[in-house]
Amino acid sequence: MTIAVIGAGSWGTALAQALAKNGSQVSLWARRASVARAIESSHRNPDYLSSVELSSSIRASSDLAEVAREAEAVVLVTPSKVMRSTARELSRLVGPDVPVLVCFKGVEEGTGCLPLEVLEQEMGGADRLAVLSGPNHAEEVAVGIPAATVVASPSAQTADLFQQLFSAPQFRVYTSSDAVGVELCAAAKNVIAIAVGLSYGVGYGDNTAAMLITRGMAEMSRLVSKAEGDPLTCMGLAGAGDLIATCMSHHSRNRRFGEAFAQGMTLDRFSEETHMVVEGALACRNLAVLERRYRIELPITDVVRGLIWEGLAIDEARDALNTRSLKPEFYGI
Amino acid sequence: MTIAVIGAGSWGTALAQALAKNGSQVSLWARRASVARAIESSHRNPDYLSSVELSSSIRASSDLAEVAREAEAVVLVTPSKVMRSTARELSRLVGPDVPVLVCFKGVEEGTGCLPLEVLEQEMGGADRLAVLSGPNHAEEVAVGIPAATVVASPSAQTADLFQQLFSAPQFRVYTSSDAVGVELCAAAKNVIAIAVGLSYGVGYGDNTAAMLITRGMAEMSRLVSKAEGDPLTCMGLAGAGDLIATCMSHHSRNRRFGEAFAQGMTLDRFSEETHMVVEGALACRNLAVLERRYRIELPITDVVRGLIWEGLAIDEARDALNTRSLKPEFYGI
Repeated sequence: MTIAVIGAGSWGTALAQALAKNGSQVSLWARRASVARAIESSHRNPDYLSSVELSSSIRASSDLAEVAREAEAVVLVTPSKVMRSTARELSRLVGPDVPVLVCFKGVEEGTGCLPLEVLEQEMGGADRLAVLSGPNHAEEVAVGIPAATVVASPSAQTADLFQQLFSAPQFRVYTSSDAVGVELCAAAKNVIAIAVGLSYGVGYGDNTAAMLITRGMAEMSRLVSKAEGDPLTCMGLAGAGDLIATCMSHHSRNRRFGEAFAQGMTLDRFSEETHMVVEGALACRNLAVLERRYRIELPITDVVRGLIWEGLAIDEARDALNTRSLKPEFYGI
Repeated sequence: MTIAVIGAGSWGTALAQALAKNGSQVSLWARRASVARAIESSHRNPDYLSSVELSSSIRASSDLAEVAREAEAVVLVTPSKVMRSTARELSRLVGPDVPVLVCFKGVEEGTGCLPLEVLEQEMGGADRLAVLSGPNHAEEVAVGIPAATVVASPSAQTADLFQQLFSAPQFRVYTSSDAVGVELCAAAKNVIAIAVGLSYGVGYGDNTAAMLITRGMAEMSRLVSKAEGDPLTCMGLAGAGDLIATCMSHHSRNRRFGEAFAQGMTLDRFSEETHMVVEGALACRNLAVLERRYRIELPITDVVRGLIWEGLAIDEARDALNTRSLKPEFYGI
């Protein structure tokens, strides 16, 4: 099968490699022509995972039309902020029945739209759309360290297709019919990772981190439930799995930002020094749109937003969480 | 309220302190008279959490009858292997309506009975029984580092009582009606922690650990579902929360044993050198009784049991997990 992978960052590169190793013909789109040329000539991505030798069957180009033209399926791994413009462009290049898999995480700023909503608006055809998410550090997947992920689609056929395309002994792919749940988990998890970082940053322990992750899943499950997804999805690879991988890793930029913020670092300075976007800092603002839409409270997300954007003090944040009324473990779902 | 805390290990001591700080009169039972005398005279437990000054309102004794006599509620923190004998003894000492909270984790060897089943058989009165579990390293709880836990009981009144008795800003207690789910999570989580240790021990990464924890929750949820509990419980503090706290901590003896085992250590030698029981190594055997009873498969648990007790090789274990058929994320619940 001929598959267009749109985006040659570390995750796009790792996914292209996984597909090619399973026998697909892969066309990889890189934004910059120099990167595409380097992949074509040396079978390595000079910017990401450069130590990994890519399958010689991976072709690369910076011409989206060329990459998309013959694609029988599309795997979208662009940054979430260009999801709408990319989808619009793709709608002119691929047929209306070509399956499209979204592999980035996010909520559209302003609208609160989830990726598949944006794609459906711009490209049509909900049943051909799917989303992939899970505890997948690209560096580990690219070198064959065992991992698992979930592909969710309203159509079982679409989910099964991508499950077959990616599955290998060292990369187990599970299916789900709950795309909304998977997308919301993916959008919310970096906020919880910041909270975990904050907690370690003020000197709290493993109990506190586990509490924040677990109560984070509880608030994600209330959001998923309101959006007519399945709360159980939050216990799966896109929810608990990705949260755990993010929060266990000292390399997670979101957790690291939380730790630094607790010790006086600002968001601007952190972004400047690390040249990285702290997705959770943006996500906590974008999730506010969904909190209003569904009239629910996300207490941990609210506190993270308060700290980063609204001048809340750390002591106030702690008290806001610690003094909430006593409750059953799962309410509001 | 006068409360008997039965067991003066680190968790019993921390829970006695939490109750006393909330205003309860606590009688703490220590197996050894010397420990009880030391607590009475110095307000410190010489063996556990010895740096923590205990509330002066905590009385201690090694005479179970003396401790239990005036108790209006009992908190049971003995090792799980003596649960039946302790329950039998208590049944003669406390009235039939006195609420009893179980704070240890386990499945009875041979019978596969869960703690509340054993207590009900020996003491009667299901509605007065509750179980407490969560991501609670005693060392952190004892010094007031924020943590959360869940109290589950078939009776909302019993759960609410213990929620009120323990709740403090730095120790948030949630309630649940799913005692069976909480008990099964508590029994199963140390097995998954061994699997995570094994995975790190053979050089796998954070993706693999997150996969094992998440798929561990999926297998726990199938077990809970068969036992007529609520699969969502596995997403809560006794499931995901405790698993995360255990697997994130390098101090977890179960995770550490898994790492060491992957590098050639035997169970006997590990137990001998560390003077500790590896609960997960016993639990994977005891859970086999439940697998047979409910006719379900627990693939990660099976592999851990195979490795420790049945001579399975690590490569075979990996292949057994990696080559299972492709599935939806949540099946069998």
